[in-house]
Amino acid sequence: MIDRIAPLAFVESWTRSTSLRFAQGKLLSACRAVAFAKAGWALKVPKVFNIRPAIDADRDPVWQIFHEVVAAVDTYAFDPQMSREDALAYWFRPDTHTYVAEADGKTVGTYILRPNQSGPGSHIANAAFMVPSSARGQGVGRGMAEHCLSEAHRLGFRAMQFNFVVATNQSAIHLWQQLGFEIVGTLPGAFRHPEKGYVDVYVMFRALV
Amino acid sequence: MIDRIAPLAFVESWTRSTSLRFAQGKLLSACRAVAFAKAGWALKVPKVFNIRPAIDADRDPVWQIFHEVVAAVDTYAFDPQMSREDALAYWFRPDTHTYVAEADGKTVGTYILRPNQSGPGSHIANAAFMVPSSARGQGVGRGMAEHCLSEAHRLGFRAMQFNFVVATNQSAIHLWQQLGFEIVGTLPGAFRHPEKGYVDVYVMFRALV
Repeated sequence: MIDRIAPLAFVESWTRSTSLRFAQGKLLSACRAVAFAKAGWALKVPKVFNIRPAIDADRDPVWQIFHEVVAAVDTYAFDPQMSREDALAYWFRPDTHTYVAEADGKTVGTYILRPNQSGPGSHIANAAFMVPSSARGQGVGRGMAEHCLSEAHRLGFRAMQFNFVVATNQSAIHLWQQLGFEIVGTLPGAFRHPEKGYVDVYVMFRALV
Repeated sequence: MIDRIAPLAFVESWTRSTSLRFAQGKLLSACRAVAFAKAGWALKVPKVFNIRPAIDADRDPVWQIFHEVVAAVDTYAFDPQMSREDALAYWFRPDTHTYVAEADGKTVGTYILRPNQSGPGSHIANAAFMVPSSARGQGVGRGMAEHCLSEAHRLGFRAMQFNFVVATNQSAIHLWQQLGFEIVGTLPGAFRHPEKGYVDVYVMFRALV
């Protein structure tokens, strides 16, 4: 599966870098961009990756990613020493849809999608995304986020909520805002950053209906 | 233990109902009110209740309260059909401090206090309170909330956060605001009320340091 966004990002970057002008400055269509990429014209070709529901065999690579992300202590409020067992129990919880992104046979990301609350709060989805440092900057996060919004809509959720977006995680906040999320709450000093001390945390929300 | 607030509430009600004027209309001190209550002068005597950590023997009354509150589907985002086992596993989770309030040998309320997040988010407390309908209007909720804030402070939490305060639950919101909580976020339509439809939910927050 071709990530719908990455080719466009590539064209933007490519046109900027080559100063070429196409049809009064309009960007190439994603189709043409993919054709260019396939023909090897690109200076920076986004990886083609596939997103699918996780299976048991994904537990090892998911744990590797989870551990790397959590150990950095800059985005998630998990104990950085969290055990493999606890981490996988959380990421593969019975009420949770777990997905992986893969490219060239390698796991380049994982995300979860589930009800944020039970019963009369179960119509709002929650999601969490992890990309290992080796796969960042290639559109994997954005690709998973778009896949997730589509899945949440398919599953009948009315909105999606992120409970804990650390204010220093600017790239994530920028991506969520681009995808239509708004900051609906601010938790003062709710994250203890190892270098920056107590930093704010945002609650972000996007309607799906 | 005497609830610190309830006697004052009693005096307010009592002075209103009897039209008596004490010292240029000032309210009686809480101490005098308790003395009056003990002497049987009161028209409406607040119950004296005790708050203590829950033990195994409290599981039955806690389940009774939990089930009654959740079945009403007007304050908590739990499945109203939640089983006893799941409910008690949640209320007595290993990372949770569980308390009960009792009066006349009867359990008149229960609350939990725990970290709202793990690791770098574990300095913010979360709490939840339940009072059965038979014990409402007697200051049990306020008494537990004050006890909870004191416990959270003693345990070293830097703030307390409520993740899910249903906007129609005006009495709770009023109480939290009186106790220093602020609305720091609004989740649009995040609660499906059985009569009022989709209603907003507030995130409320109070610093403890």
